[in-house]
Amino acid sequence: MFTGLSAFPLTPLTENGIDEKSFVRLIDRLVSAGVDSIGALGSTGSYAYLTHEDRARVARLAVENAGDVPVMVSIGSVRTSDVLRLAEDAQQAGVKSVLLAPVSYQKLNEDEVFTLYETVSRNLSVPLCVYDNPNTTHFEFSDALYMRVAQLPHVASIKIPNLSPDPVATRQRLDALRALLPAHIKLGAAGDLAAATVLTQGGDVWYSVIAGLFPEIPVAIARAAKRGNAAEAQALSAQLEPLWVLFRKHGSVRVVAAAAELLGMVSAPCLPLPLQSLGGDERQRLAGVLEQLRLQA
Amino acid sequence: MFTGLSAFPLTPLTENGIDEKSFVRLIDRLVSAGVDSIGALGSTGSYAYLTHEDRARVARLAVENAGDVPVMVSIGSVRTSDVLRLAEDAQQAGVKSVLLAPVSYQKLNEDEVFTLYETVSRNLSVPLCVYDNPNTTHFEFSDALYMRVAQLPHVASIKIPNLSPDPVATRQRLDALRALLPAHIKLGAAGDLAAATVLTQGGDVWYSVIAGLFPEIPVAIARAAKRGNAAEAQALSAQLEPLWVLFRKHGSVRVVAAAAELLGMVSAPCLPLPLQSLGGDERQRLAGVLEQLRLQA
Repeated sequence: MFTGLSAFPLTPLTENGIDEKSFVRLIDRLVSAGVDSIGALGSTGSYAYLTHEDRARVARLAVENAGDVPVMVSIGSVRTSDVLRLAEDAQQAGVKSVLLAPVSYQKLNEDEVFTLYETVSRNLSVPLCVYDNPNTTHFEFSDALYMRVAQLPHVASIKIPNLSPDPVATRQRLDALRALLPAHIKLGAAGDLAAATVLTQGGDVWYSVIAGLFPEIPVAIARAAKRGNAAEAQALSAQLEPLWVLFRKHGSVRVVAAAAELLGMVSAPCLPLPLQSLGGDERQRLAGVLEQLRLQA
Repeated sequence: MFTGLSAFPLTPLTENGIDEKSFVRLIDRLVSAGVDSIGALGSTGSYAYLTHEDRARVARLAVENAGDVPVMVSIGSVRTSDVLRLAEDAQQAGVKSVLLAPVSYQKLNEDEVFTLYETVSRNLSVPLCVYDNPNTTHFEFSDALYMRVAQLPHVASIKIPNLSPDPVATRQRLDALRALLPAHIKLGAAGDLAAATVLTQGGDVWYSVIAGLFPEIPVAIARAAKRGNAAEAQALSAQLEPLWVLFRKHGSVRVVAAAAELLGMVSAPCLPLPLQSLGGDERQRLAGVLEQLRLQA
């Protein structure tokens, strides 16, 4: 499941908990658009804000509504014992893989992070994607740690942050990683802005925020990349630049949450407080961008 | 309760949950040593790793065993609704104040942090200490935000990180803050290394990790500072320099956890995985430091 386009939907909330109807509609939309996999309960899906029970419920809803599209969910938590329970819940829900970031409160060191992955991978039956996300975990993987973790059973992919939109730099980085890591490890772009570059320069998969809400253009980008048409993939991505501007300024989750609210696809507010989607002028600006790009519910 | 020495004990764990007996012994030790207040369930007390139920239980144990010594607990969580529930639980347990850091997964902006404090302070009956801890929250308070938050009802103190061990710099910083903030806001040192300086240069309170395990020298430092004897306070703090070296290198929580394990005050491991206390050579080095400083169970 670690190829092509993996779409990460919101987990819309209401005052009373998960907005299950809206979530199922988001899943339906992804299936109809032909994404290659679904990353439910990613950072965009607010996994870090939800109870174990809610996470199990959302995982089940995603699997039940995704048809043949494989579903991955995040099992991250600050405590190893919770991660193990979440892994069990996710597998019982029928996910095809799990995503694990070294979520922390106290800053973790390399040995602690390795031991976390070692413990979890030992207790797993499905493939695991290493979620490297320093913006939220404040942990920086070294290449040496990538190498250690990639040797563990079930580890199948790495979601790599901060890859460059420059094709030469990205090609070099991916080649360097391939030389270090076992051949079966799939390399994925975390972050939408450089994804067209990553997919056309040897990356395997795009773990995508924008595709969780607006899958059509990302599906077209992934297909163009697969055909080897780098120019088309880049041109499609460049179309979305007005969104990338807002992503860079506010963080992608606030932007897609505001877009879903503006288009009536979820009730507002749909994010867990204290997080807030865009307000005021920036919300108006986003409304203009959605109209300009013809992004609709 | 926001004056003198506030001691932050570990919450020792075993495989089966909270090690209540060891925790109560730690509280007894703090009461006997004459600390001015107890900060249970601080970062050192692993609040971010525990369930609501465990946090309520630990708060109750602390209050029941602290006698006349006022108890504060952390109510931090990534989600506002959880913070509100934790505040309610803490107050029902009988705490005299609460400590709140803007704990995050997605990086928070200033408006989100202000709204968090506004919401919580509106629903509170006890004083609140603002816990500014960028090492764990990855949020940097500006002075402008200090000013906004300090106007809120119940806000009574700020736990300030990264104050300087240089007396002139610390005096200037504290004077500058006093000029900005309402007079009733008590200014506290977070971080043990500069605490003697802070207490002798106009700070109100030392929120102390080391005092949570070894309260005697910190009590002596706080009393010397209160008598205006800066030289004695500084000399006592300088004695602890071998510990400060380890704090800087490994983070204070790993060091005090290893010390408690080495001295048999808790069972090992006492931290929630993936966190690990010191191992190998560094553990041996700590054992030597404890002996040299005559720090005992």
